[in-house]
Order: sequence, then C-alpha cells, then structure tokens
Amino acid sequence: MLRQGIKRAVVHARAVQAVCKRTNMTITKKDLNPQVVNAQYAVRGKLAVRADEIKEQMRTNPSLFPFDKVINANIGNPQQLDQKPVTFYRQVLAMLQYPELMDRAADVGIPNDAVQRARKLLDDIGSVGAYSSSQGVTTVRNSVANFIQKRDGYAASASDIYLTTGASNAVTFLLTTLARGDGSDGFMIPIPQYPLYTATLTLQNSNPVPYYLDEAKEWGTNMAALNDAVESSKHKLKAVVVINPGNPTGACLGVKEIKDILLLAQKEGIAVIADEVYQANIFASGQFHSFKKVWSILKEENPDFNVPLASLHSTSKGKIGECGQRGGYMELVGFHEDVIEQIYKLCSISLCPVVTGQALIECMVNPPVEGDESYPLFNKETNHIMDTLTQRANRLYEAFKEMPKVSCEPPQGAMYLFPSIELPAGAIAEAERHNEQPDEFYCMKLLEQTGICVIPGSGFGQKDGTYHFRTTFLAPGDDYGEKIVNFHKKFLAQYE
Amino acid sequence: MLRQGIKRAVVHARAVQAVCKRTNMTITKKDLNPQVVNAQYAVRGKLAVRADEIKEQMRTNPSLFPFDKVINANIGNPQQLDQKPVTFYRQVLAMLQYPELMDRAADVGIPNDAVQRARKLLDDIGSVGAYSSSQGVTTVRNSVANFIQKRDGYAASASDIYLTTGASNAVTFLLTTLARGDGSDGFMIPIPQYPLYTATLTLQNSNPVPYYLDEAKEWGTNMAALNDAVESSKHKLKAVVVINPGNPTGACLGVKEIKDILLLAQKEGIAVIADEVYQANIFASGQFHSFKKVWSILKEENPDFNVPLASLHSTSKGKIGECGQRGGYMELVGFHEDVIEQIYKLCSISLCPVVTGQALIECMVNPPVEGDESYPLFNKETNHIMDTLTQRANRLYEAFKEMPKVSCEPPQGAMYLFPSIELPAGAIAEAERHNEQPDEFYCMKLLEQTGICVIPGSGFGQKDGTYHFRTTFLAPGDDYGEKIVNFHKKFLAQYE
Repeated sequence: MLRQGIKRAVVHARAVQAVCKRTNMTITKKDLNPQVVNAQYAVRGKLAVRADEIKEQMRTNPSLFPFDKVINANIGNPQQLDQKPVTFYRQVLAMLQYPELMDRAADVGIPNDAVQRARKLLDDIGSVGAYSSSQGVTTVRNSVANFIQKRDGYAASASDIYLTTGASNAVTFLLTTLARGDGSDGFMIPIPQYPLYTATLTLQNSNPVPYYLDEAKEWGTNMAALNDAVESSKHKLKAVVVINPGNPTGACLGVKEIKDILLLAQKEGIAVIADEVYQANIFASGQFHSFKKVWSILKEENPDFNVPLASLHSTSKGKIGECGQRGGYMELVGFHEDVIEQIYKLCSISLCPVVTGQALIECMVNPPVEGDESYPLFNKETNHIMDTLTQRANRLYEAFKEMPKVSCEPPQGAMYLFPSIELPAGAIAEAERHNEQPDEFYCMKLLEQTGICVIPGSGFGQKDGTYHFRTTFLAPGDDYGEKIVNFHKKFLAQYE
Repeated sequence: MLRQGIKRAVVHARAVQAVCKRTNMTITKKDLNPQVVNAQYAVRGKLAVRADEIKEQMRTNPSLFPFDKVINANIGNPQQLDQKPVTFYRQVLAMLQYPELMDRAADVGIPNDAVQRARKLLDDIGSVGAYSSSQGVTTVRNSVANFIQKRDGYAASASDIYLTTGASNAVTFLLTTLARGDGSDGFMIPIPQYPLYTATLTLQNSNPVPYYLDEAKEWGTNMAALNDAVESSKHKLKAVVVINPGNPTGACLGVKEIKDILLLAQKEGIAVIADEVYQANIFASGQFHSFKKVWSILKEENPDFNVPLASLHSTSKGKIGECGQRGGYMELVGFHEDVIEQIYKLCSISLCPVVTGQALIECMVNPPVEGDESYPLFNKETNHIMDTLTQRANRLYEAFKEMPKVSCEPPQGAMYLFPSIELPAGAIAEAERHNEQPDEFYCMKLLEQTGICVIPGSGFGQKDGTYHFRTTFLAPGDDYGEKIVNFHKKFLAQYE
C-alpha cells in the first residue's frame, strides 16, 4: 500500500518534471505591456530607491555613511517628518472607527463639537466599513460644494463632485477616459511638471504636449509658449493640464493667466484639468485663484462659454498633510453628460474611495470655526503648521540665495523649492561617463554625502542645458539648508 | 472712468462670445477611449442604478412602490446591511487615528492587548497620515507572510507581499502589466466570473478567453473545458484567472483541481491569478485550499516547477466585511524579477495604499488568540457573524429548493447563491421586445415588485440559453427568501 503510494508519487513527480523541462517558458519584460515598461516616475525612482537602500544599510552598519540619517526631501509627505496631525480631524476619524467612543468622549477629553460631527457623518455613512456609492457619500459631497461656493463666490453642486482615493486616482480616471489609447491624442502639460502626468499618459498610450513655464517670470504661464505648443502639436489635443500652485515650481497663477488658459481651451475645444491640491499652501508672495472661480466669471459674462473643467483637491497637502489617508475629490463642470457617464463607470469599477478618506475630506472643507469648542486648539495647530512651513521655506530660500551658481524663485505656494543650478563642465562630463543625467549625478552625490534625498529636475522636465532639483521644505533643523550649501561648494570645487 | 470700465467689459464679453460661437466643439463619447466606453460592470450597472433611483423616489414618496425598503443583495457589502464591525479591529484603528487614546484606553474600556497592538503598529508606521512605502508597511507584510506560512505549512516571504487598496486594485496592477494592450493577448477567465475581470481586460484592450465552470458538478472546474479554451484560443495566453471560493458560484476547488490548473499554466507558460478574497467564507460542505499551498507542494516535488502565481486577499469579505476600509494584498511568487519591477513601478505611481487599510490587514491576519484579553469578545463576535451568514445562506438555499423551475447548488463559500432559473418562453419574448436580456428583465421585475436588487447571470456570463441571478445571502429577515419565492411564482403564472 505504502509502496504503491510512493510509486504513484514518483510517477507523478516525473510527469511534472517532464512538463517543466519540455516547456521552459517564462513571462519576461518583452511579454509585458510596453506602456507600463516605458512609464517613468521619478518621485519614487532611482534616487528614492537608493535612499531606501542606504537606510537599510545603515540599520546594520550605522557608521557606513558620513551622516546619521536619511532625509526624504523627495516627496511632500509632512507627517513622515515632524508635522503632527490636527487633533479635531483625528478625533472625528477615531469615533467613526469606534463609535462606542462617542458616548464616552468626555472621559478622554474629546470635545462635543467633534462628537456631533462624527455622529452626523456616521448617520449619513452608516459604517466606514461599508462600500459607499461610487461617487462618494452625499453629505461629504454637499460639504465640498458648500466649500467651493464659499471659496469662489459662485455656485457649486454636489452632483458635480466625485470623491477619489487621493488626487492621483482622479488623474487616472480623467486621462484614462479622455485618451483614446491609440497614440494619436495629446495632452498639454507644463514643463516642469509633476511626473504623475507623463507616467499616466504613457500608461494610456497618449502623448504629452509640453508647454514651458517661464522661469524668468517666477515660473509663470507664458501664453506664447502655450500657443506655440498648440500650433506645433502633431496630436489631436484633448486637454490642458495646469498645476496651480505649481509642482515642482510653487508658482501661483493670476486671474488673467487662468482666463487666458480657459479661453484657449474654449478656442481649441479641449478640456482643462486643474490640479489644485496645493491651494491651501500659500506663502507671502503667493495668492490662490481657483480655475472654477474664473470659469464661473467667464460663464457669467457669456452663457455660451462651457469649457469642460476638472478641478482636483486632496487631503494630502495643505495644513492637513494627511497623505496616507488617501482622501481626494474632483469637481467636473462643462463636460458632456456622455463623458460624465464614462467617468462614473470607471469610478464604479473600483467600487468606492476609502470611506475614512471621504470623511476626512468633509472635515477638511468644513473645519471648526470661531465659537466652536474645538476652534482654539484647531487654530493653534494649523497656525503652527503654516508658520513652520513658512519659516522653513524662507530659511531654505535664503540658503539657496547664498549659493554660488544657483538661482531660486521665492516660495509662493506648494511645499517645494526648485532651484536652478549651473553645473561645471567637469561634472557634466563625469555624469555622461556614468550614463547619467547631470542633475541626477549631482543629486546622487548629494544623497551619498549628506543623506538628503531630492529629485533631479530631469524627473520633472526642464529646458535643455538647464539643471534643477526639487526639494520639499518640510525637513526640520537649522542645518538642513547648510548641509546642502556645504555639499554644493565642495561639489563645485571638485568639478570646476 | 466707470463708463470706460463698462465699455471694456462689453468689448471683452463680445470677444469671448466670438470665440465661443466660432468654435462649437465639445468632447463627446466618440472622442473618448473606446476601451472605457466598451467596458461593462454589472455589479454597479443598470439594476444597481435603478435601485438607487427607487431609493431616491421613495424618499419623497414612500408609498410609490409596493415595499417599504430597497434591499441591496447585488453587492457583498455586509456592513451596509446589519453586520457589526469587530470591536478589536476598530479599537486598534481608532487608536491609530488618535494615538492620545492609548494612554486613556482604560477609561473607555479598551483592553490592553488592543493598546499594545496599536502601539506596535504605530511605532512601525509612524503616522497613518504619512505615505508608506509603495509596497506597504514592512511589519504588515511580515504578519501577512506569517499568516500564509501558518495557513499553508509552507514558507512565505514578506518581500513577496504587496499591499493594495482592496483586491480590485491588485487585479488592475496585474492585468495592466501583463496585457500588452494591442488586442493580441488573452486571459482565461471562468464563466460565470466576477465582472471586474472582463471590465479590466476591456480597459486594457485585452481578451477574455472563457472557460465554463461545471454547474452539474457544483460549479467545479472542468479540465476538459480549460484545455478546450487553450486549444481554441486565438490569442496569446498570458494568465489563467481562478476565483476560489467562486464568485458568483461559491464553489471551493479541491487540491487535485488546483494542481491541474497550475500544471496547465506550467505547460502553457502562463501565470495564475488566484482571487482568494472569500477564503474565510467557508460553509458546511466547502473547504479552502490555497493556490500557494498547492504551488508549494508542486515546487517541493519538482524544483523546476515555477509558475508565476499571484494570490489576492482583502479585508472586504470574510468575518471582517470591512469593504469601505479598502485593505488588500497580493502575494507574488514565481514571477521573473523584471516583471516584479514593472508591477512595483505601477504601485509606486499610485504612491501607496491607504495606511489604515494596511493596518486592518495586519489585524485580520493576526487576530487575538486564546489567552488574549480581547479574545472572548472577538471569538463571540466572529462566531456570531459566521453563524448568521450560515443560517442566512441555508435559509435562502432552502427557499430556492422549493421554487419551481429553479435549481441551486448548496452554499460552499463566498457570500452568494447563484440559482439557475428556467424562464417561460413568454417572459423571454417579452424581454426581447424590451431589448433586454431575459434574466435582466426578470431581475428588474423582482426589483420593481419587491425592492430586492440582485444581479442577472448575464452580468457574470453563463451558457447560452441558461439564466441565473446572483444574490448575496447577507440580508436579514425571515421574509427575504419568501419575498423572492412569492415574486417568482407570480412571475411564472404571468408568463407561462
């Protein structure tokens, strides 16, 4: 019996071996979607991967590098550094997760207005563990519409709001629907840009049609550059993407610039995708005007005006910095109902955005106001966050101003500085020998020598022969800028 | 001055009008991605949309329909009905959102082991408001690997685990990477299937290669059907998709069936995508065997065996039913490292899965055990959930057994029954007159007359000339099955 069993097993194993030997086929890169293979995403690219390796190596050998920690200035991730979450938001989310807490809130010092907010949200949501409708919870969309109406002074409707898993998810929905996928379409994107756009366009087999931002004018939009891009485009244009405040540049667009872009879109019959996730990150010299407000002004002036406009926002940035919670929304106006139907279908295939992220969107757009029990602490915390960001932005800007061969625009918005660096010919030649982009070579040296991880300008796009890097100004410590300055001077000395 | 201002405004408005009149272009359906336009997703399709409309109509006019509420049996969404969240999970998530709670946990009756779990997770995560690594938090991936090792009795590695935003997200990553997008590739999918697969394949311009499940054998896998599908496929096969336990069928595969599928994949040089999200929803006659376990057995028998296998799991189903939290993971073994690199890149473009969802995955795979302070309540709650599901499944199955012209397999796994209905010729003719699928016609009548929303078999695929519907067995109430039976009898009487 046992012998028979063994015999059977042996025969079976031989049969398996025969199959395996006969067929030595494996799925490799050449069998994959070429669009995926071609896509590039620098924010989590080569520099970020090397930074992770260094962290791992330092865990076993802390003295391997000439610094004691890696600083991730490559990604706008405030709570990974020292930014604290805002108490009111987290109290509400905790009660949504564990509703029993509402009845005992006083025992743990949770104020009454936070309890009321959680109760209202929970009544409408049911449970954060249930799928919501694919467009998102109605109450949350109502609050978003109210927020937009108050922000802009023009009507907004909950039926135009689509909640998403962060703003990246909204970008995917929009580009997937609008790009025909046969390589013929073009999307105008600013250069430099946030590489999510080029990556998603590559995935959709569509083409970026670049328009260069004007570094000489604080990275503003230059209509001549936009018109040139339209004229010279070989592709059927579908939309113009605008990032306002800019990423990586931080530039804030004026009403006139926004009007011109919307009118260009009207003239060309294309949509506008306004990535406004940094709308609450505004510094001294910046001011935020929403595309929706200017869209409404144009519509008021002329009822025939009807450019399809998608405006994106998120819980990841602003005072909140709740990246890991993946809250986001898009407002869609001026789109044909057939187009809306297709975008809705895409939302429904991914079932629904994370429900706690939806609740956080509600809290973000409807924060405590003066007179509320939570207001004094809320106000103190959010002021502290903005003051800290402003200080760090200015300190870093001042450091960059001191650096030889570097020029940098003052911080207006977002959480980044994007200085331009003149690299010595020796460094460029050395980079070429290593088959690297010169600014990538520079950033890699910065990482290896200081532990500071930034992203080379080539990851965002830049004019040929110019070199930049993007750094967040989130990192704490007086010596952050100083470390970069010292490295830079040594680098110049070595290659000049 | 004022007059000049008005004049300027008028001139400007006219210019805008001129632009708008000259160009009457709008983006319409014909300009969109044909893959998006062609994609179909029945779970949130026509029936679900009509159910939402009815709910909305009932809000203003409660007596408009002959029932007092709509029951969404179209989607496996336990907490939308009456399933309560498991206390331990929610306590941990509440503390991750509001860490101050940890110090005052005793004041609100949160046990110490929940506090310890939250503290450990928070130490490793940092803040749930920060982006994690794109692959997911290391501690969570370690726990998942331990869980798999214990479940299967074979090694599993945290480096093979990728955390995702629900399992749907994993399906998108896998099909997007593996499908070349030029219409030439084929993916074997079971019929009936969960329509996420056909929808995602359509989006990727790839082809479903159907293999029919064997209704006569409790919806088991029939290797002859699989081999036929391989032989007759006109496409370059890339992977075989298996849903185990089945959706919509609930069928649980045996070790022999799984072995045969893996060996077929080896022979054909294709990957296996094992959707195992219902692995904890097992009823009397069912038993779960994971693909990874059988993969490991084959590998042990023959080291040359190396089929690329992706196994998917989620927090949405099982005892947890935390759909809205969007936790998921995939384990990838046997893939070429170049393929892994591309899948990782896709993960990184969407930054990271929601971090609270990752934490919930950790709690799901590493629940309280006997001796833990939380265990008695945890045990009571999860037993209650499983007992309730079992009762409801059996009650509905008994009701279906009584129905004339209906046959139904006994519940084995998942949360669905998928009865077959013989529709009278009169009903089929009537459906054709309305340009509807006969089973869609039947389900729509069921919805309009009882408020019960189920999905027609045509949304999942079925053999020509057979008709089915899928209903969850989550709905409470003794009269749920009875309502369907009564409707069914009336329907037969009307059309026979």
